[in-house]
Amino acid sequence: MRPLTHPSIDDVSVEAILHALSDPVRVAIYAELADSGCAQTCSTFLTIKDRDIPKSTLSQHFRVLREAGLIHSERQGVEMRNTSRCGEIEQRFPGLIGAIMEAHRVQSAERARAARRRAKGS
Amino acid sequence: MRPLTHPSIDDVSVEAILHALSDPVRVAIYAELADSGCAQTCSTFLTIKDRDIPKSTLSQHFRVLREAGLIHSERQGVEMRNTSRCGEIEQRFPGLIGAIMEAHRVQSAERARAARRRAKGS
Repeated sequence: MRPLTHPSIDDVSVEAILHALSDPVRVAIYAELADSGCAQTCSTFLTIKDRDIPKSTLSQHFRVLREAGLIHSERQGVEMRNTSRCGEIEQRFPGLIGAIMEAHRVQSAERARAARRRAKGS
Repeated sequence: MRPLTHPSIDDVSVEAILHALSDPVRVAIYAELADSGCAQTCSTFLTIKDRDIPKSTLSQHFRVLREAGLIHSERQGVEMRNTSRCGEIEQRFPGLIGAIMEAHRVQSAERARAARRRAKGS
């Protein structure tokens, strides 16, 4: 089993954070972890934003979040426990994560409104 | 000559903005455009952050910024005039661009300090 790698907070880069959080599914995962405050297992997220996500895709999303320094993962038996590193990140790059998550929220709300308009029109 | 395409502000996506601004050179270009307020030509940026950048690479950076909706470009003879669309973006995604630019500033300052420490130590 490959060891899990976590960058030290000083090695976390803006580029990696922006890449990791440019994906709506990863932002949704991260938002749930950051909100819940406590460790969550990957399987909690198998349905996110009303979409079923294959387990392999989900593992890949968690890997990107972990390698960007956004989450901490720990194996516990066959499960993986994940916690957000939002406190550390906020200290290093104040306001960054919040602004990105808010922008995704704005965009999701707009897309949902547009979808409703299309559904009404059809 | 290919026409220049600019997304309407409603079609600008968080994903495209994060991708465009994940590159330090593009952030530096964008920061200068946003600061200057007035149109600037691509050749103004041939040396940025003490690095010489090939003209073709620079054109590519401007294309990414333009297609993400971050700048407006206009051909004037052989030159390209670029202006930032920061007002529109700020209205759609408040605080996003500022937080990203600030994070890059923090990171650049840290990297400069680390480089000075290495130079002193050697």
